[in-house]
Amino acid sequence: MSNKHMLPKGFKAAGIYCGIKASKKKDLGLIYSKLPCSSAGMFTTNKAQAESLKVCKAQIKNKVSRVVIANSGNANCFVGKRGITDAKSLIKDLSSELGISSKEILIASTGIIGKPLPVNTIRNSISVLCENLSEDGASDFATAIMTTDTREKIATADFKIDNKLVRITGMAKGVGMVYPKMKSYPNNHATVLVFIMTDISIKRNLLKMALEAATNASFNSISVDGCMSTNDTVLALANGAAGNKIISKKDKDFELFSKKLLGICKTLSTMLVDDGEGATKRIEIMVKGSKSEKEAVVATDAVANSSLFKTAMFGNNPNWGRIAAAIGASGIDILPEKLQIWFNEVKIFDKGRICLDKSKNPLKGKRIIKVVINLNNGKASWSVMTCDLSYKYVKINAEYN
Amino acid sequence: MSNKHMLPKGFKAAGIYCGIKASKKKDLGLIYSKLPCSSAGMFTTNKAQAESLKVCKAQIKNKVSRVVIANSGNANCFVGKRGITDAKSLIKDLSSELGISSKEILIASTGIIGKPLPVNTIRNSISVLCENLSEDGASDFATAIMTTDTREKIATADFKIDNKLVRITGMAKGVGMVYPKMKSYPNNHATVLVFIMTDISIKRNLLKMALEAATNASFNSISVDGCMSTNDTVLALANGAAGNKIISKKDKDFELFSKKLLGICKTLSTMLVDDGEGATKRIEIMVKGSKSEKEAVVATDAVANSSLFKTAMFGNNPNWGRIAAAIGASGIDILPEKLQIWFNEVKIFDKGRICLDKSKNPLKGKRIIKVVINLNNGKASWSVMTCDLSYKYVKINAEYN
Repeated sequence: MSNKHMLPKGFKAAGIYCGIKASKKKDLGLIYSKLPCSSAGMFTTNKAQAESLKVCKAQIKNKVSRVVIANSGNANCFVGKRGITDAKSLIKDLSSELGISSKEILIASTGIIGKPLPVNTIRNSISVLCENLSEDGASDFATAIMTTDTREKIATADFKIDNKLVRITGMAKGVGMVYPKMKSYPNNHATVLVFIMTDISIKRNLLKMALEAATNASFNSISVDGCMSTNDTVLALANGAAGNKIISKKDKDFELFSKKLLGICKTLSTMLVDDGEGATKRIEIMVKGSKSEKEAVVATDAVANSSLFKTAMFGNNPNWGRIAAAIGASGIDILPEKLQIWFNEVKIFDKGRICLDKSKNPLKGKRIIKVVINLNNGKASWSVMTCDLSYKYVKINAEYN
Repeated sequence: MSNKHMLPKGFKAAGIYCGIKASKKKDLGLIYSKLPCSSAGMFTTNKAQAESLKVCKAQIKNKVSRVVIANSGNANCFVGKRGITDAKSLIKDLSSELGISSKEILIASTGIIGKPLPVNTIRNSISVLCENLSEDGASDFATAIMTTDTREKIATADFKIDNKLVRITGMAKGVGMVYPKMKSYPNNHATVLVFIMTDISIKRNLLKMALEAATNASFNSISVDGCMSTNDTVLALANGAAGNKIISKKDKDFELFSKKLLGICKTLSTMLVDDGEGATKRIEIMVKGSKSEKEAVVATDAVANSSLFKTAMFGNNPNWGRIAAAIGASGIDILPEKLQIWFNEVKIFDKGRICLDKSKNPLKGKRIIKVVINLNNGKASWSVMTCDLSYKYVKINAEYN
């Protein structure tokens, strides 16, 4: 285990195979903080919500959190009241095993929808899971939450606040049913699961504020397949073990933390897109010159979710026409005489004129494609990331059971 | 040419290769009525609109129409003012050739976006095109408007109005960028192109009313890939050659005509879905028990456009969880304890209980899949048609240039 995968001070993690997955790969993970944590969560806005997620939303209203249990292979979703009872009973067992209040425990699930959680199988492994908790358990945890992911996703940032060394570590999984639009709760649902731990000392409301801004500009701005999940969850836990003076207002320390948190979320988002189901390319789409940021969000999402655009990218075809059609279909004003489009910094369409030199395809041989679309209707902009639509995406999702 | 492909009385059609398509397949079609026609049109609601379509919208405001010129291989879209001039100049040439007012000529295009229409190539073929006009030219026309279509699409209905024999003949093309949401114009945009001819005598406003209702329940209720085109057009021409007393109010004759027109539109819609790019299955999705028809429309569209659902259908996987997730993501209330789902009349999910017998897969070996979803939240319902998402869809659209 390399140092970069060490957890922030005071955190431990574990990941084991408990018996949910037929593949016998790791399927149960645990995060533990010896100190009570400020916590914040972002949850899917899908109206169909997993029972684990419903329980987690209720739990996060408690003032402090210390533990997160997460399983893969089963989404504990659309199974009715039984799913609520199952999630609660696991929390209760974990509470006894760890000797902490059940109020301090959060839960997340990912996998098949509609199958009851094999709660006895999980229960039988709880003591082993707890025994496996370790300061270098990040990789085990990150592996235990994977479904169609081909690799673990971990990101770490180190910086100083109040002259104390602070660490943020994030772990995430995707990689299909990825089109998260999460909101914080209470106030206001891929399965994208993200777990962020930090040893910074920060007030709960500020942690929530920073998490919300970071999520909107990262996880909420990616799409693999335009399909929003019932289980999307981002959880952040801050245990204060770094020993800095608690961040309690919007000052430069908060700004630095927010920036570092956004960096972690963007790194994890990029990992999710790069490992998107069947993905052969990462596509970064920026719409600028939009009347409002909201319009730019709609326009970027329309392009990122167009099957015609995504298949064209798979085929190395700089098909700007499909971009124009997708934006127009979203209801955004788009005029040929104003529109400009670049692929990897090569201008393809310039205010009514096609300037693509077919002998110089800017997509050929490139794994990363940057598309810039200037509507020249205003000053707002937005950026999203997506991947191409390949044969392999079809294969994965036609065969998944 | 079999009798079922004969045009209504007083109509002629033609289809030739004029030089637009590299494949040297037919690419230019013409419809002609010796009598002036009541006409009505439905056009894409995409904000990016083809220049041919813009000109057609202006032309249909004229009181009568007699001629439609349509080309494939080039969408005359996103080419700026030149596209307007090109469309108008073709109309002018056709007007001279046929000796009719240019006001009576409609135009439609489909094909590649962003390439100027090869207007001289088309112009050079106009006299040959007109010479080819024939009472049994339906098949030639239907072939000339094809792009990725693998077969021509023609439907005919015969019935009696006012004791006179009336015929409606419709011709259509798809089969990618198919998610039409068209509105009538003036008042209020696949490329789906549909041309309907009838010899009935009917007032223009009633023709429009019948066409709007029929389009909403047919072409506006299908999706191949969720991508709305810049060129979607449905045109209806009624020349009165049947000799019935003109239909001028909503009576039983209007009802009968409306029903027959809807039948033609549904038949053509089914042909479009069956020939959808890469389609191996036709999927009919009905949502019932919805609070309102609008909610049912949103819910059916959400399922029809879910890549996860469509790939599951390709894989013969009755994955109801992806249906629930898609509906929930669309913002429609969906509760496990109320939800019921049938695949081909086999109940798969019943109010929280999965009743799928895995040994009896209702999708296996079936080309037509009927999905019924009862939300049990109200009394409204809606139905849409889509196709599955296959390897071939990816191939067609990754390679299309």
